[in-house]
Amino acid sequence: MAVYTEVSDADLAAFLEHYNLGRVRALKGIAEGVENSNFVLSTETGVYILTLYEKRVEEGSLPFFLSLLDHLAARGLNCPQPVRMRSDGALGRLAGRPAAIVTFLEGVCRNRPSIADCARLGAALAQLHLAAADFKGSRANALNLEAWPKLFAPIAFRADEVKAGLAATISAELKFLQANWPRDLPRGIIHADLFPDNVLFLGDEISGVIDFYFACVDDLSYDLAICLNAWCFEPGGAFNIDKGAAMFGAYASLRPLSAAEAKAIPTLARGAALRFALTRLVDWFNVPPGALVNPKNPLEYFAKLQMLQTIGDARELGVLI
Amino acid sequence: MAVYTEVSDADLAAFLEHYNLGRVRALKGIAEGVENSNFVLSTETGVYILTLYEKRVEEGSLPFFLSLLDHLAARGLNCPQPVRMRSDGALGRLAGRPAAIVTFLEGVCRNRPSIADCARLGAALAQLHLAAADFKGSRANALNLEAWPKLFAPIAFRADEVKAGLAATISAELKFLQANWPRDLPRGIIHADLFPDNVLFLGDEISGVIDFYFACVDDLSYDLAICLNAWCFEPGGAFNIDKGAAMFGAYASLRPLSAAEAKAIPTLARGAALRFALTRLVDWFNVPPGALVNPKNPLEYFAKLQMLQTIGDARELGVLI
Repeated sequence: MAVYTEVSDADLAAFLEHYNLGRVRALKGIAEGVENSNFVLSTETGVYILTLYEKRVEEGSLPFFLSLLDHLAARGLNCPQPVRMRSDGALGRLAGRPAAIVTFLEGVCRNRPSIADCARLGAALAQLHLAAADFKGSRANALNLEAWPKLFAPIAFRADEVKAGLAATISAELKFLQANWPRDLPRGIIHADLFPDNVLFLGDEISGVIDFYFACVDDLSYDLAICLNAWCFEPGGAFNIDKGAAMFGAYASLRPLSAAEAKAIPTLARGAALRFALTRLVDWFNVPPGALVNPKNPLEYFAKLQMLQTIGDARELGVLI
Repeated sequence: MAVYTEVSDADLAAFLEHYNLGRVRALKGIAEGVENSNFVLSTETGVYILTLYEKRVEEGSLPFFLSLLDHLAARGLNCPQPVRMRSDGALGRLAGRPAAIVTFLEGVCRNRPSIADCARLGAALAQLHLAAADFKGSRANALNLEAWPKLFAPIAFRADEVKAGLAATISAELKFLQANWPRDLPRGIIHADLFPDNVLFLGDEISGVIDFYFACVDDLSYDLAICLNAWCFEPGGAFNIDKGAAMFGAYASLRPLSAAEAKAIPTLARGAALRFALTRLVDWFNVPPGALVNPKNPLEYFAKLQMLQTIGDARELGVLI
């Protein structure tokens, strides 16, 4: 949750003069998104989300994110759509930060996704990959295989504070992944952070996918691996193969996996588990003062990694081969 | 800002079955209120605020707060109005906490109130006092003169960590206030926390007064003293007598102050300054882990107290005598 920057009523009124949204009717800082400050903004024309981009988001990537949302929305995907300024731009400045207004999506995220929800998620992910296939923009994954050792190095000496033996576990896993990472898989735009709190449901249908600020070009099947870890484990930590099978099955019905992709899932899932374990570990040691953020427990993802290390065959994760 | 308790989609759906509000369309935790968890709740019938009452609010006082809001709304005051359950009650339970739904008020709070805003605030406060005059409920002020020494005692030994000499300043002020606190002033329901972030404006008019969870029976003029401190000092710390005069003038045009009330304002303002300085100091030393709260700087209110200690006559604060 996050509101890092306060917005004054005077600054907001001045900012809105760049838009055709009428005057402000309400503004509430919301507990959504970890990297940016987000507000529900109500104006004379409707309800929107106002985002102020904080330092952790590279400003150079903002046009990529915003034009990706435009592209996906134009293809009928339920994602936030950037609202144009009178100047036709989508990116302004407010309270000293880059800022944008996007449409508000109805829906509530699922705290405990069901097997059917995992199927819906799989289909939505395939739709996202297909809708983005002809998107011209490009952004490298700043949190890929090459980045993980660099994330780990500055905190390696403290990792065992969180759990004895953690530093050795991470070093060994990094070596395994460097040696075994799959090459030449189909690439494209991935969401890269499609956790349950970024998927909105209305009744039994997915009404929206949000928070594209990790989107990048990478292996499409790596996005599935991220979702496998985020959606298909039970709260107690057990993997649920029915959820995996539902997700992979629904995805593959729209975008079939190649044999190489299917085979690579266990390794990709180990990488995805390590990636979130590492960034959570970094956050754990680096909660900025006054950030109003509860760092997520990194051990959840180390436990998932430990389970994934026991998997010999993608079918054990629900992949249909 | 605060969201202490997460609400699952399943628990929320079950909770809404007690209401005639239709199904949920969106739920966003918001950065509003320090004591409770607040959400903007959108349903098929409209937009509301959902509040989960956390431990710091005495559960026994919740019926008082909710019936006060009913009373004020019935008299035309723009305040949140509790939404009735099918059972006619206004107080339910959600995620293990007492919980209520109230109407959503449009408007944006003023970060830097103008002189005219201070006049509007004065009039709104008088309207609140008058509208509450025939309210039957009663609640003692848990943070009154008698409570301040008890707030201070457990943190007295640490006060000088915040500023050298602070403990002695507080002790001397407590003695002064015990000896000089005005008696027999007109009493009634006071808001007791009417800071700028609890007053919503649409354009140049006040569109709503919110957050009644400190409301109680006390000296009506003490409510004015709280507002004087919260509204009539500039960001740099200087007192603005024009703002004081605007506030007192607009208030008195609806509810004239007695001579005793007018004369008491400087002492009441010292008490009000000490009350907020003390609770901020307590919070400063007691930020609960994971509370997602930025404690407010207690020194702001000690600086106001210091200025108020130099005031010999209520007219120096803008009171018309």
